[in-house]
Amino acid sequence: MTLKHFLNEKKRRVEEALATSLQNNPSAPAELVTAMRYSLEAGGKRLRPVLMLSACELACGSDEPALQAACAMEMIHTYSLIHDDLPAMDNDDFRRGRPSSHKQFGEATAILAGDALLTLAFFEAARCGRLDVVLEFADAAGINGMVGGQYRDMEGEGKTLTLDELQRVHAGKTGALITASLRIGALLGNAAPEVLHALTHYGRLLGLLFQITDDVLDVVGDAATLGKSVGKDARTKKATYPALLGLDGALAMARATADRAVDALHDLGPEADIFRELARHLPDRNQ
Amino acid sequence: MTLKHFLNEKKRRVEEALATSLQNNPSAPAELVTAMRYSLEAGGKRLRPVLMLSACELACGSDEPALQAACAMEMIHTYSLIHDDLPAMDNDDFRRGRPSSHKQFGEATAILAGDALLTLAFFEAARCGRLDVVLEFADAAGINGMVGGQYRDMEGEGKTLTLDELQRVHAGKTGALITASLRIGALLGNAAPEVLHALTHYGRLLGLLFQITDDVLDVVGDAATLGKSVGKDARTKKATYPALLGLDGALAMARATADRAVDALHDLGPEADIFRELARHLPDRNQ
Repeated sequence: MTLKHFLNEKKRRVEEALATSLQNNPSAPAELVTAMRYSLEAGGKRLRPVLMLSACELACGSDEPALQAACAMEMIHTYSLIHDDLPAMDNDDFRRGRPSSHKQFGEATAILAGDALLTLAFFEAARCGRLDVVLEFADAAGINGMVGGQYRDMEGEGKTLTLDELQRVHAGKTGALITASLRIGALLGNAAPEVLHALTHYGRLLGLLFQITDDVLDVVGDAATLGKSVGKDARTKKATYPALLGLDGALAMARATADRAVDALHDLGPEADIFRELARHLPDRNQ
Repeated sequence: MTLKHFLNEKKRRVEEALATSLQNNPSAPAELVTAMRYSLEAGGKRLRPVLMLSACELACGSDEPALQAACAMEMIHTYSLIHDDLPAMDNDDFRRGRPSSHKQFGEATAILAGDALLTLAFFEAARCGRLDVVLEFADAAGINGMVGGQYRDMEGEGKTLTLDELQRVHAGKTGALITASLRIGALLGNAAPEVLHALTHYGRLLGLLFQITDDVLDVVGDAATLGKSVGKDARTKKATYPALLGLDGALAMARATADRAVDALHDLGPEADIFRELARHLPDRNQ
């Protein structure tokens, strides 16, 4: 099975599970649920839940034990995008090729839809029946992880960051959820400690790699293919890897990081090939 | 021990625990933690965590097992106030006698401080070691509870609501967390099913009672004593109990609801007296 086929199949599994996750809430306000679903079903690569399902399958041969947690992870990612797009934050009118939540439903509904998705994510996470999984979610999404990174990102706007500072921003903002996705998938697959350790290490590098290529795509990418505007980083003088290292330097760093990510899986067998392929593919991605 | 003394003692316990809850986060951005602490330490009655500690003590003779969850509950309440005060929501410049979070730190930080408090609440909740407690939190704070009620409240602005519709708004917006506080306290105290049942019923009525008296205080209360502006409901033509029933009608409903709350505790012994006293006291509260 090719990498693309594998990822698409996992993505289909995630989207099927997501479609049913918001159906059983008859006592919730219908319009709020509509706003939540609008952002949740807007698509995207579903990278985090796909990684979670793949890690679970690597650990136990099936992705089934991680399906619910994968939905929870996508809910957390989606809430963060809704709040990030708000006028007081990044002020983005478009997301995944459609009007962002606050453009579609108004700011107040967007704030509440984000709050509701975060809360529902913890409900779904707790339904997995594992407290260690709930703790992973809360730690990765909180002040030591994603929200902390978002704050640092915002605070760094207009400032010149060092490479170390930039990596610290992204270790939180994107890295924490990507690493947690792999860890939670491994935990739910009852992975051996050395597998959990290898996937954690791989996750940190994959998160870095993902961010470098995200920054590169903002320079060389195609808006239609990406489903979002490009060139924004340069216009807003945002600290990025290409801005710090040049485009070639950033691409070289991406390739070196991909190699390190593959190395992190050294002790795992061919069952980890899909993760190796993914890391090797990312420096050349176009969306 | 008088009611006031009892509540103050529990409040002191909560505030002591809250003060340490944000101390162990060296890798989080310090300014974001400052914003979280600013709102968390702003005071208030601490009604929800106090109810939780009291319910736990009623069930098992000690409030200790509920201290951590009580902090989590106050974090959720505090996050909801921060987001509720935002310009796109209620647009309140003051909260508990001080500038609201977005006036003090800016809108973006206020949004993230709220997100961070909600996330940290689930971390603390999970550390209690009970999945049923995490589920109670997520259900009460989400679309079927608080966030759902906040959405309905916002949606109902400028409309004439029936008494039923108004009660539905508040059953979510204030009732859900108040009821969950009592339930979680009881669960952590390993309460017998009939005690949990009685406290759940009491909690729903107490939440209603609390909201009626909150609306009444907006008409007859003193801004300095309350630490917030008064008369806002009338200015914004908000649906309230006094607006629907008149001031005397609202006070009569408060007293009848207090009686019903006391009745809900019928099968409990003198260990529940503090809850009876609280219900009887609420119609006459001045803050």
